[in-house]
Amino acid sequence: MAADIAEQPDVYADVLAHGAPEIARIAALIAERRPRSIVFTARGTSDHAALYAAYLTEIRLGLPASLASPSVVTVYDARPDWSDSLVIAVSQSGGSPDLAQVVAAARAGGALTLAVTNNPDSRLAAEAELHLDVRAGHERAVAATKTYTAELLTLLLLIEGIRTGTGRLDAAETAVLDKLPELAQSVLDDPGAADLAGRYRFASRFVTTGRGYAYPTARETALKLMETSYLPALAFSGADLLHGPLAMADPGVPVLAVVGSGPGGHAMWNVLTRLEKQRADVVIVGAADVPGQTARLATPAVDERFAALLDILPLQRVALHLAIERGENPDAPRGLKKVTETV
Amino acid sequence: MAADIAEQPDVYADVLAHGAPEIARIAALIAERRPRSIVFTARGTSDHAALYAAYLTEIRLGLPASLASPSVVTVYDARPDWSDSLVIAVSQSGGSPDLAQVVAAARAGGALTLAVTNNPDSRLAAEAELHLDVRAGHERAVAATKTYTAELLTLLLLIEGIRTGTGRLDAAETAVLDKLPELAQSVLDDPGAADLAGRYRFASRFVTTGRGYAYPTARETALKLMETSYLPALAFSGADLLHGPLAMADPGVPVLAVVGSGPGGHAMWNVLTRLEKQRADVVIVGAADVPGQTARLATPAVDERFAALLDILPLQRVALHLAIERGENPDAPRGLKKVTETV
Repeated sequence: MAADIAEQPDVYADVLAHGAPEIARIAALIAERRPRSIVFTARGTSDHAALYAAYLTEIRLGLPASLASPSVVTVYDARPDWSDSLVIAVSQSGGSPDLAQVVAAARAGGALTLAVTNNPDSRLAAEAELHLDVRAGHERAVAATKTYTAELLTLLLLIEGIRTGTGRLDAAETAVLDKLPELAQSVLDDPGAADLAGRYRFASRFVTTGRGYAYPTARETALKLMETSYLPALAFSGADLLHGPLAMADPGVPVLAVVGSGPGGHAMWNVLTRLEKQRADVVIVGAADVPGQTARLATPAVDERFAALLDILPLQRVALHLAIERGENPDAPRGLKKVTETV
Repeated sequence: MAADIAEQPDVYADVLAHGAPEIARIAALIAERRPRSIVFTARGTSDHAALYAAYLTEIRLGLPASLASPSVVTVYDARPDWSDSLVIAVSQSGGSPDLAQVVAAARAGGALTLAVTNNPDSRLAAEAELHLDVRAGHERAVAATKTYTAELLTLLLLIEGIRTGTGRLDAAETAVLDKLPELAQSVLDDPGAADLAGRYRFASRFVTTGRGYAYPTARETALKLMETSYLPALAFSGADLLHGPLAMADPGVPVLAVVGSGPGGHAMWNVLTRLEKQRADVVIVGAADVPGQTARLATPAVDERFAALLDILPLQRVALHLAIERGENPDAPRGLKKVTETV
């Protein structure tokens, strides 16, 4: 898991240098077909990448986005009318039968379908009309890390490419993305994550939170903690936290709050104040432009769209080091296999 | 909270007798406008009612459904093109500014908008073109119970009414719904829930799970446990549980599995087997047609669409009694108010 995590700057560099042309080709092709909405379908970690892409779809493209429950197709045998939609399945292995079945049904119903996977030879890649390889290389650990961030970057390039219509990115995006591998490396070089993991040695639960583009990061952090340290970790959008779960917060509950320096970050200020009132133990992760508070795990201040590609990195390392501190084996979580097959 | 819970059979009877005509009128009007998809927006408990309605939309109407993140509109100032859609906001109070803002933006963009609330005088009701009152009456406790089930029933009648096109229900639905208040009363009369709560006195966390129509029940159960007993409670669709969080399960983790006698219930068999392997403490709730296992909290075997209206009842009582056993006040959870205002 440590090796997978460490490779992420190189994976970013590879996707940008060698993956981008194919992503641009597919993006231009999709732009030409003018889908009216984008439907994502995914499980686990890939579902968090899909959630990120759903925010991008609505905010950057102004198209409705949704996350489809495979059970509608696979369990209840329904066929929602996705004929005007682009249906994107995201899966590192491409091996889960339910996603392949959803894509096959969508394609038969006239939808444009795209599989985003780390395995071009998978059943999912074959079922979809279009395929994008996220090029993360072989992932050793069961807990996904570099395939997650490769999915994020691939989906970002795809959606920004659909936005311009040509598949190529605007100069504003290119300027930031050119520095992405270097920024990612600087984040990974920060020793803060390992120190923080030690502080949580005896925590018995976690709450993670963030809004907008930071919410998928909160969700993915919670899943990593559950997978590797077997601790209950609850992820909430900042707003949903206030609608009930806030009652749980007290000094015994560590909160990891992903707070950027943009609109999503600002929308967290009120949430942080409420958590403070409940005397929760809050650690801020991100570029955090919060009055009177600084981030414990600081990341570079970039547009929140790009922050999702950086903020998760120290949080993966918190999960890794906490598992080791607790005497667990983060590479082989109990009860899990690398390819999960659900129907 | 006990009084709110106990009133649910009467609320069902009232919605069926006095709410149904207005729901049918609105359903017929929506059917005439022929939306291409339904977008739901909601927070907290109402978000679980919206999730239930999203399954109904895709399975019963064959229309794409999505759950919109208000932050796209309120934080990032985006305007997804919902002009072909019906946008439904669900909220007991109708008082959260974010939902009102999403509905106002959707309406300005040409969407057909409907507010489903327990407060016809709310801002949300005023912002939407159409409004349905769920008629639950004054809810005393902060933790929502009868407003949740009133929302479920209202949305069920609405969507089945859209399906027929006339707003009126088919005989198959009417036959079951005529018995709903009586079935709900029989479920509430079962003392099993209070006994089960005692067994969980020293539990430090919960996992809840279900698939399809039972997944919103799992989500709502988790929220009730968090709100009233301040315990971390994690809800997963049965399939998502296998994609990572299963690693958490061990004999110290109580699992509440909502398992019906239809397709969603059958899809849980494999999940139950995997949980058994991890030696998790699984209690089955529902009509549970599972080989070799019986439900600890049994509910009547009805179509899974209707089961969602019954299965949550004993689970609300588990949350109530557990809070009392733990010396908490379920009527006034710390840190929460009845109307949550998020932006």
